[in-house]
Amino acid sequence: MALIVQKYGGTSVGSIEKIGKVADKVAARAKAGDKLIVTVSAMSGETNRLIALAHEMSARPNPRELDVLISTGEQMTIALLTMALLDRDIDARSYTGGQIRMVTDDAHGKARIKKIQSRKMKADLKAGRVVVVAGFQGVDDNGNITTLGRGGSDTTAVAIAAALKADECQIYTDVDGVYTTDPRIEPKARKLDTITFEEMLEMASLGSKVLQIRSVEFAGKYNVPLRVLSSFEEGEGTLITLENNDVEQALISGIAFNRDEAQLTINGVPDQPGVASKILGPVTKANIEIDMIVQNISEDGCTDFTFTVHRNDYDTVYALMEKVAKKLGAKKMKGDDAIAKISVVGVGMRSHAGIANLMFETLAKENINIRMISTSEIKISVVVDQKYLELGVRALHDAFGLDSDGKLKNL
Amino acid sequence: MALIVQKYGGTSVGSIEKIGKVADKVAARAKAGDKLIVTVSAMSGETNRLIALAHEMSARPNPRELDVLISTGEQMTIALLTMALLDRDIDARSYTGGQIRMVTDDAHGKARIKKIQSRKMKADLKAGRVVVVAGFQGVDDNGNITTLGRGGSDTTAVAIAAALKADECQIYTDVDGVYTTDPRIEPKARKLDTITFEEMLEMASLGSKVLQIRSVEFAGKYNVPLRVLSSFEEGEGTLITLENNDVEQALISGIAFNRDEAQLTINGVPDQPGVASKILGPVTKANIEIDMIVQNISEDGCTDFTFTVHRNDYDTVYALMEKVAKKLGAKKMKGDDAIAKISVVGVGMRSHAGIANLMFETLAKENINIRMISTSEIKISVVVDQKYLELGVRALHDAFGLDSDGKLKNL
Repeated sequence: MALIVQKYGGTSVGSIEKIGKVADKVAARAKAGDKLIVTVSAMSGETNRLIALAHEMSARPNPRELDVLISTGEQMTIALLTMALLDRDIDARSYTGGQIRMVTDDAHGKARIKKIQSRKMKADLKAGRVVVVAGFQGVDDNGNITTLGRGGSDTTAVAIAAALKADECQIYTDVDGVYTTDPRIEPKARKLDTITFEEMLEMASLGSKVLQIRSVEFAGKYNVPLRVLSSFEEGEGTLITLENNDVEQALISGIAFNRDEAQLTINGVPDQPGVASKILGPVTKANIEIDMIVQNISEDGCTDFTFTVHRNDYDTVYALMEKVAKKLGAKKMKGDDAIAKISVVGVGMRSHAGIANLMFETLAKENINIRMISTSEIKISVVVDQKYLELGVRALHDAFGLDSDGKLKNL
Repeated sequence: MALIVQKYGGTSVGSIEKIGKVADKVAARAKAGDKLIVTVSAMSGETNRLIALAHEMSARPNPRELDVLISTGEQMTIALLTMALLDRDIDARSYTGGQIRMVTDDAHGKARIKKIQSRKMKADLKAGRVVVVAGFQGVDDNGNITTLGRGGSDTTAVAIAAALKADECQIYTDVDGVYTTDPRIEPKARKLDTITFEEMLEMASLGSKVLQIRSVEFAGKYNVPLRVLSSFEEGEGTLITLENNDVEQALISGIAFNRDEAQLTINGVPDQPGVASKILGPVTKANIEIDMIVQNISEDGCTDFTFTVHRNDYDTVYALMEKVAKKLGAKKMKGDDAIAKISVVGVGMRSHAGIANLMFETLAKENINIRMISTSEIKISVVVDQKYLELGVRALHDAFGLDSDGKLKNL
């Protein structure tokens, strides 16, 4: 008799019929004796409908009120799913974020969970009820409704699993697990049975949109076993674990990529202490996230500075940088939003040299020019022209043997 | 600087454009210096959409979960209206029923308000904010979401006005006031400037759907001045007052009617103590409301018993009465659902004889047969064949001089 937290995303509850199928799944599991807490997203399309209404009403919808509005999406789903469970003779009860005191900070639209009152949920579980919780939403200390931002339902599920010390947190989605890369680009991509939290974090942050990155961080921090699986197909999905115990483990778990970035470069800045903060400060102040940062010393005591931001922020940042470049007396500045980032990810690379070299060689063989490189413990990322994205991903997937068992023969 | 509670119904907030117009109205009033609390219904059509979803999901949606679902309708409106107010430079904040602790009993779908926490609203008013509150909804003592039933937004407004001792509670609707009768039946119907609570209660309960009856009771009980007025047209509407101070007041305020009733008669029941409860007990137990009840002694120590119920309940009650009639040894039972009730209403009739007679004479002149009569302090109701409804209403409206000043010359 395990305590399981399940999460069903928007496409899994996208219609009355689909909610019925989720209810069937939950009911079967409950009848098998497991204790269940189910968190759900808004029906797919519903959140967009609500956001469209808000923008029809106001050019810049007030963030507090936008949260009041869009939190109704999940509230609809919890009620409908609970009705369906009761119809299947499963005792169940729904709760909004406010009702179970899912307390967050007050950053509307991107709030972070601070604590959860588990009393009501525990009482219901004890009484044999399935607990259905609205994902994605909470309340701040003053009872104002907040949302966690897109994808936040995953975080809700993990936070509840952590608070109640659940045996497993299962994220049901429209894919059947985590793949070595996007199968739409490389048909030979292979589903992974397990992946470590660290690898998953790198995969998620690089645009493998299976899980929301904060939920993975959360799960890793509180050691919640996390499983990604399909709402529509049977299967064990991919288990995300703290440690990969397989001694013969693959060096590389997957090839991640991201085509949502843009690159900005300032050349020939006089190399003085504080240059980096002078360049990046205005970007940070504008609340824009910076991804990769590379600084190199050029000739004559000057430095070249390159960084990437989300493509949506490109125009804003370009305008900021023009001012900064002028102020710093830089020789030149340029930008490019037709770039792509490709990364090889794997905890195995920690103990193996040669991964980077194989990566660069493989790209060189395909005549793909590398514009920027950045590395971490378990990841090597390169920025290339956007047009080389698919070619690069397929070449690397092949070179690192990911279509078979991922146990590298090339090294 | 008055404290005003306003309520806008579903048609008044039926589209983004209409919500914008409501915001204009509220903003103008706020800029004029009044303190405002605005309660709103769901956008027209939204509640029906949600109920349809529930019935698509479940043949008998669980009442607790149905409330969780349909309460999202008003939550959408409060967010959208508050966004619109903020865009008009009016500081404003929205609250769900749960957020201001609109505490009700736990009768889901028809809950009654027990108390309201006014702390947050008072603080906002003091800070110069317009407070926007979701109508129609509350929470029970355990924090479960409840709804007050259709039309409950009126009650929300009145309850808040009572709790905060507002100077006036203004119910904005799609009509511009209370009329002497339905203008669709009698084009000469005249808008009343004032009406007493008691009269309004009789008018509302008889199918003049301007205000929800419970809100009028509530307003009368707590002495909240209530005004009905149009969202779409300018005008003073109709003020509902505790006492009509006009000495030369009209005898009759209006002609109300109801075509949603059905009549059941049991003839020749042995007249013994307890007969009424034996007949009506099963109806009450089935949770069906009874409207008019008439009992007459017939010949031979037997009694005839007639009552009316809502037409939707007719088949159920007919089946119940067949059993009851058999058990009681009644001679005959019959039913009719093609009836209509017409009533003359007015506090003035208290001190005037002859009203009933004029009513009966007027109907007789039109050859309308009266099937049932029931009277109260300020109302006389008759049941007639449904086909005579329009004719009867027009004849009475004329006979009581309601198209002019309502100061009766005929008596």
